[in-house]
Amino acid sequence: MSQQGQMLDTLAVIGVGLIGGSLAGALKKRGAVGTVVGCGRSVENLETALARGLIDQYTTDLIEAVAAADLVLLATPVGSLADLLPRIAGHLKPGAILSDAGSVKGDVVEVARAVLGSHFPQFVPAHPIAGRERSGAEAADADLFRDHWVVLTPTHDTEAHAVETVRQMWECVEAKVRFMDTRAHDQILGMTSHLPHAVAYALVAQLADLDSSEDYSSMTAGGFLDITRVASSDPVMWRDIFMHNAQITADLIQDHRAVLKRLEDLIRNNDAAGLEAWFRAAKELRSQLKSAKTGDE
Amino acid sequence: MSQQGQMLDTLAVIGVGLIGGSLAGALKKRGAVGTVVGCGRSVENLETALARGLIDQYTTDLIEAVAAADLVLLATPVGSLADLLPRIAGHLKPGAILSDAGSVKGDVVEVARAVLGSHFPQFVPAHPIAGRERSGAEAADADLFRDHWVVLTPTHDTEAHAVETVRQMWECVEAKVRFMDTRAHDQILGMTSHLPHAVAYALVAQLADLDSSEDYSSMTAGGFLDITRVASSDPVMWRDIFMHNAQITADLIQDHRAVLKRLEDLIRNNDAAGLEAWFRAAKELRSQLKSAKTGDE
Repeated sequence: MSQQGQMLDTLAVIGVGLIGGSLAGALKKRGAVGTVVGCGRSVENLETALARGLIDQYTTDLIEAVAAADLVLLATPVGSLADLLPRIAGHLKPGAILSDAGSVKGDVVEVARAVLGSHFPQFVPAHPIAGRERSGAEAADADLFRDHWVVLTPTHDTEAHAVETVRQMWECVEAKVRFMDTRAHDQILGMTSHLPHAVAYALVAQLADLDSSEDYSSMTAGGFLDITRVASSDPVMWRDIFMHNAQITADLIQDHRAVLKRLEDLIRNNDAAGLEAWFRAAKELRSQLKSAKTGDE
Repeated sequence: MSQQGQMLDTLAVIGVGLIGGSLAGALKKRGAVGTVVGCGRSVENLETALARGLIDQYTTDLIEAVAAADLVLLATPVGSLADLLPRIAGHLKPGAILSDAGSVKGDVVEVARAVLGSHFPQFVPAHPIAGRERSGAEAADADLFRDHWVVLTPTHDTEAHAVETVRQMWECVEAKVRFMDTRAHDQILGMTSHLPHAVAYALVAQLADLDSSEDYSSMTAGGFLDITRVASSDPVMWRDIFMHNAQITADLIQDHRAVLKRLEDLIRNNDAAGLEAWFRAAKELRSQLKSAKTGDE
């Protein structure tokens, strides 16, 4: 049983990186958890987490980490979840709550349903939308989630108590929790995050394809480096995000090609009025998005 | 004749906005010019320029401004140049040098050649690559051009003396001058600036097309607002840039659609290795571009 003021007795964090380490540290700082067990493959990273007080103890043994936990958080990139879920499936304590932090939800929910069996109702799919350029326990920050969204995508089968516990955990670290349908999450994140990444990668790839790319290198001020900033993200993580959200991201890229074709046609048809109207509408919508976001935070 | 230390006797700046006002102020600050005459349509803006010491006098009469100048700088957006050039063509002082600051060079050079007649060799097409979100004389800054590129695209007919004077003028305000072929300029800026703007506008337009865009508005963190920042630029100015660089920008958008199709195919074909290789190459090239730029400045 957890002590007074504590939300959880034992939390296992699988993957003590930026997300897992930040959450663990933020919960410990607030006295919301009895014991945090960190688990990962790099002892060096786990030692860093221990030294920084993010976790109370660690193990590199996944089963050992999972076995005693009241709540298990899989804070590893989305690409590893299909591998981790079957490995821990038979080792969860009865009634233990399981959650994740993956950037795509549809695939994960499908795998979880297939492998967790009777434990599936205790699985609360989650996506904390926060990030930094740095990674690892070294980069963890107890304030990482403050005023950031955490999207929960429980299914009809998910137990209310499990959802409530995960919601309270994120609200405890000052995140703003919202609920979405799994598919809506993947569609919205596809549009607002995955597609912009695809476009940034495509812009850089197009520059690379040009004959004399050295002529371009000193002229990449004026927006190019800004707009392609996200193309410096981790290639493996983004490979996995696109693979796991394949249908939606491929369709969004297809739609994007169609939008670009309309723009291209306006230019080729010398349609100055159409072009101006188009740019004006985009500027207007972006201002709305910006004030929505600003007003929101 | 100009006094000692002065590069120019009389400079006329047509359009005393961010670019024209900053250049005028920077030249005056360095004592490089005898008299700066500002010309524009807004008396209020010209009064601001006068009060800030960017110019010595002003007129709203284009012909009057041009008639006495040793160097005339057309510092108005690219869309106005095809209108201004024929109006001033017969009123330039013999031997007066003419330059511009437009973002597209091919169209401008063509119009200038057609309307300037025997004065065409004194026209030095120029593009200072510097900008701010704010505009007008109020936003002018004598340090705006420091370490920024100014591209000059003289033709075979341009007189060496005229080119040299314009080069010295920009170097005097600490800009870095480089020479390019007209078409190369429009191609390189098309790729590094105009296409990224097109893509940003297209991303916002795609979001606007979606059924329930209110669901998206609070989720535009994670890159979307950053990557679409340039879609808040002035619609009229960007309409004109695309209209004046129509062939090149339309072709670049077409190429971009083809690059996106390749990316879409990798995703649809479940080609994880291909996707990772693609992202890795893009990340690598962007790092090179970034260090080239950093090393450069």
